[in-house]
Formats: sequence, C-alpha cells, structure tokens
Amino acid sequence: MHLSRSRDLAIHGLCCLAAQPNGRLVAAKEMAEVLHARRTYFAKVLQGLAHAGLVQAKRGRLGGYGLARPASEITIADILQAIDVGDRPYPCPGTRGCQTHDLCAIQSIFSSAAETSARQLDTVTLAGLEEGLRTNGGAVHAPWLSAIA
Amino acid sequence: MHLSRSRDLAIHGLCCLAAQPNGRLVAAKEMAEVLHARRTYFAKVLQGLAHAGLVQAKRGRLGGYGLARPASEITIADILQAIDVGDRPYPCPGTRGCQTHDLCAIQSIFSSAAETSARQLDTVTLAGLEEGLRTNGGAVHAPWLSAIA
Repeated sequence: MHLSRSRDLAIHGLCCLAAQPNGRLVAAKEMAEVLHARRTYFAKVLQGLAHAGLVQAKRGRLGGYGLARPASEITIADILQAIDVGDRPYPCPGTRGCQTHDLCAIQSIFSSAAETSARQLDTVTLAGLEEGLRTNGGAVHAPWLSAIA
Repeated sequence: MHLSRSRDLAIHGLCCLAAQPNGRLVAAKEMAEVLHARRTYFAKVLQGLAHAGLVQAKRGRLGGYGLARPASEITIADILQAIDVGDRPYPCPGTRGCQTHDLCAIQSIFSSAAETSARQLDTVTLAGLEEGLRTNGGAVHAPWLSAIA
C-alpha cells in the first residue's frame, strides 16, 4: 500500500486532532501551517476525511475540525481508504496481449499481499499511533504534533 | 511493495524462462520482443537479475539467458529484491522538523506492514506463479508466456 503525499498528510492531520486536549477543535489553516502543507491541498485532504466520516467541522468563532469518532475507533486502514489514490496492487501495463483479466496469477499474488498488508493496518488505531509518536519523542521530536495543542 | 515497470518486466521475463521446455535458453532480444519492452531497458533488468544470481547467460550460437537455479527455488520476494527500486514503505517528506528518525511510529507501522507483505511474497515461488499463469489461460490467454517456447 503506497503512502502518497495526500495520505501522509491525512495521517499527520488526524494525529494532530487526536493530540488535542479535550477534543479541542483546530482550524484547517492552523493544521496546514504546522504540517507545512499548502492550504488548498490540505483542504482537499480534510474534505476526503470528512466524507469518510473521520473528521467533522464546526463553524463559528470557536469552530474548526475535530475527530468525528474516538481515535481508538479509527484505524490506519480507515485513513488510507478515506484518501483513495486509486492505486492498484499490480498496475499491469496491459501491453502484452493477455486475455486473462481477473484470472491473472500475477494480479492475484499482489492483491493477496496487499490485502494482508491492509488487514495488518486495520489492527493499528489512530490512538495507538498518536501514543507511539508521543512515546518516541512527542513534543520535542515531532513539533507538528503539539504546536497547536 | 510497489510493482515498478522494471520489477514487472523482471517477473514476466523470469516466467518466460521458467516456461521454456528443458531449460532452453532464450535471447534477450527475443524476450524483450514478446514482452513489448525496449531492448536497452530490458537488458538492464536482466543485468539486475544476473547480478542477484537468478539468471545466467551463455554465449555462442545456441546461447542466451536461462534460470540460474530451479524456478521452485526462486520466490517473488527474491525477484523484487533483485530489482531494487529504492522504495521505502513510508517516504517521509522530511519537512516537518521531526527529530524522531528511526523511532518514528509512522515509519514503524508501514515498515512492519511491508515486511508482512514481503514475507507472504517469499512463500510464492516462480514455479508456482508460472503454473498459475498456465492454469488460468496460459498459451491462449497470455501469449507472451509461450511465444518463444
């Protein structure tokens, strides 16, 4: 499973939200800044996460983005699925005249390996990841994690 | 584990060799043709496979490329390792001022998922893949597999 720039931003953005004390909401602009991301690009990532039901926005003076459900109920696989980059486990160039289509044994082997990998990423929660980041440095070593909180 | 164009060609090329009756040698030029690959590009792929001890070349009128060891003793993971495209499970952009380095929990999660995937691909042999391709169509549906044999 390839980690694209947008998926990478999604993971970091969600860790940012998970790290906020008492579920404090954060403005998209603030998050984009600490993550060194372009605001328009990051807005699209947030849109994908909102569409997948992982974050929700509240308007108003104290508004901003927050997790739509507890970090312990969001898995890394959920995040990758939310930001679908249309990658296939085996991107066949389709130039060799094969007519096997779905029966292709190469396709089958790589799909199976990708499924195994996805199943593993479905056992890791956002809460676990955020805790791991804090344990291994946190505020000191990953400034983006606590710059807002 | 991302399947690059060069790794894709390596897998197809090795299946071609595994499919040859009585270990018949095949010229690089012939293989490149049936695989619809540029000859110079494919030559580099073969060079990588030779360097990793998966294929060997014999010179002379009846020379060409053949497997350096039985197809049952070559795994898909061996092939991917032979054609190292320098991909990392988690390509951190390195722009967020983190000092966690090897301790990064995101890096750790994706490395672990990639290792699981690699372990699975290490249980599938070239012989098994070639048999799978033949079973699901073979000569009729994957013309590149038997165009030379």
